[in-house]
Amino acid sequence: MSFVDQNTILDQAVEAIEALRRDGARVHCITNTVAQYFTANVLLACGATPSMTVSQDESHLFTGQADALLVNLGTLDAERRRVIGQCIETASHAAKPVVLDPVKCDLSPPRLKFARELLAPGRIVLKANRQEAQALDGAPALARITTGRTDKVAYDGAVYSVQNGTAAMADTIATGCALGAVVAALIAAADEPHIGALAALAWFGVAGELASEKASGPGTFPAVLVDALALVSSDTIRRRARLR
Amino acid sequence: MSFVDQNTILDQAVEAIEALRRDGARVHCITNTVAQYFTANVLLACGATPSMTVSQDESHLFTGQADALLVNLGTLDAERRRVIGQCIETASHAAKPVVLDPVKCDLSPPRLKFARELLAPGRIVLKANRQEAQALDGAPALARITTGRTDKVAYDGAVYSVQNGTAAMADTIATGCALGAVVAALIAAADEPHIGALAALAWFGVAGELASEKASGPGTFPAVLVDALALVSSDTIRRRARLR
Amino acid sequence: MSFVDQNTILDQAVEAIEALRRDGARVHCITNTVAQYFTANVLLACGATPSMTVSQDESHLFTGQADALLVNLGTLDAERRRVIGQCIETASHAAKPVVLDPVKCDLSPPRLKFARELLAPGRIVLKANRQEAQALDGAPALARITTGRTDKVAYDGAVYSVQNGTAAMADTIATGCALGAVVAALIAAADEPHIGALAALAWFGVAGELASEKASGPGTFPAVLVDALALVSSDTIRRRARLR
Repeated sequence: MSFVDQNTILDQAVEAIEALRRDGARVHCITNTVAQYFTANVLLACGATPSMTVSQDESHLFTGQADALLVNLGTLDAERRRVIGQCIETASHAAKPVVLDPVKCDLSPPRLKFARELLAPGRIVLKANRQEAQALDGAPALARITTGRTDKVAYDGAVYSVQNGTAAMADTIATGCALGAVVAALIAAADEPHIGALAALAWFGVAGELASEKASGPGTFPAVLVDALALVSSDTIRRRARLR
Repeated sequence: MSFVDQNTILDQAVEAIEALRRDGARVHCITNTVAQYFTANVLLACGATPSMTVSQDESHLFTGQADALLVNLGTLDAERRRVIGQCIETASHAAKPVVLDPVKCDLSPPRLKFARELLAPGRIVLKANRQEAQALDGAPALARITTGRTDKVAYDGAVYSVQNGTAAMADTIATGCALGAVVAALIAAADEPHIGALAALAWFGVAGELASEKASGPGTFPAVLVDALALVSSDTIRRRARLR
Repeated sequence: MSFVDQNTILDQAVEAIEALRRDGARVHCITNTVAQYFTANVLLACGATPSMTVSQDESHLFTGQADALLVNLGTLDAERRRVIGQCIETASHAAKPVVLDPVKCDLSPPRLKFARELLAPGRIVLKANRQEAQALDGAPALARITTGRTDKVAYDGAVYSVQNGTAAMADTIATGCALGAVVAALIAAADEPHIGALAALAWFGVAGELASEKASGPGTFPAVLVDALALVSSDTIRRRARLR
């Protein structure tokens, strides 16, 4: 994309971050039990408000009051499986963004099949690592975020990339899971899915770089990352973001 | 209340804290999966011992061996719903304190209905934020703790208040959930429910103030809060507590 | 054991640690919801990769792709109960190590009965604290790890001990649960169960000692412990390990 387009997109991404910080957003998260606590604190640090109930009689009610839905397939149990379709229906019907993180679907055929079924209508944003994305090759998605050394966002025929972040982010659990929730929050705050996705990747990447300078190891990294997400200015994000 | 009464209550509250630190207390927690890890560490830091099993065949056994029961309605699932009544029965029958935290019941009609049913016999201590308390207006409670900028405790016709704490406590998840567990532990350690409640609010509030001076953001705050809960002296709590 | 044997065992233990750090190991963990996040980060810090799904249709698939299985009976619910036997079958059939942590089985007769049934075939490594080990007295185990002020490992007629660690480790939740997962990873990396067990106890103990010097209380301890697990050199472990 041209230099002008690049700057426009960066401007829009930073606007989405500022909008989320200013106005907040409720994100209902059907996410794995390993990542719940960290994800909730990351959402709060970014200005969003989490809810995480997975029960059949309440999950769609929280989804109905939320601005976005995250569906993360880690620790997928019977109750989660039952409510996911209903919550996606509720969110989609109200034109609210839905982000799917198909955690480790490359290692589990039933999970892969389930992820393909969820994606089939083509209304969901997919956020996956390289192996998961390969396993889901060909599945339709409203937008397709592939994380890795370089993060990619494919949307409406174009592919964008973000080159921020640090290896430390892969050394701690749930960083990617929490990112998925922030993607959902920022797509709700942005006008278009790719802007929200790029904003989340840039914010996380820049905060990760700052945090890796302060952390003394993988144990202290998560708390320092949450600090950085909350405290990094939008000017710093704009200056350090490496969007293409 | 008069200045003399105020000092008497503060003395009793500090005595309850010292009793918990000295003698310990087992608290069985049916609490949400988001808050479990943090709640358990907070209880340990306060001298209490947590158990958190929610299964139907074991939860009442742990309740039977505990000194108090916390029922927190976050991430309320089918298994939690099934055991809560039985555990309250077990605890009430043995005259052990039960604290109900009706998390977000203002946002979910079935949860609100369930909370009202649990409160109906009037034997439970309610700990709620302002919105939850309003939604549960008129429901009977043995004592009624309402958290907010000023925390209130209504008991036996009188209303007490605590003005400690810091805004940072609302910026991290599960702080209020963990507080509920400490309320349960301290009511077990105190002679009367309002003393235990006021002790918990003062301890948490003072520790929160100390922690907010040390934390570098919302990511590092929870760990520093747990440090402060463990390390703050009862003299400091007594000196800084703003009980009315 | 003789001084020569002691050194041989220490050499083998350190080799297992280096092998895990170099080659990694997948550990499928059926563990309690309180300990999941911390356990996952501890495994990553030690070079292992966790999976934690408990559903009936996926848990055995993850076990089949793992190098070791941890079965931790905390927050034992209906779904966990259903899959544990099948996962142990899968792991045992492929001659992969299985570690059982029968959390608080001394306080719950149905859990104790369940643990005895799991141990009956004699193919599982038991990791228990003193009270749990006493409750399970006489139950057969491939190897028997008893934690306490001095940790003991009984295997093949011999008893070994490790005298490292710090009281701080008992003041935070899930430290013992995470240790169980590392035992599983290191038994997969070692030639014999007792070597893996001793390696895990020494690594945890030495890291705990280093962490207790840096932590400012029980709140900051867990993160600093994870840092120490990741950063402590095998030379330091060898030098500080007190194996008998």
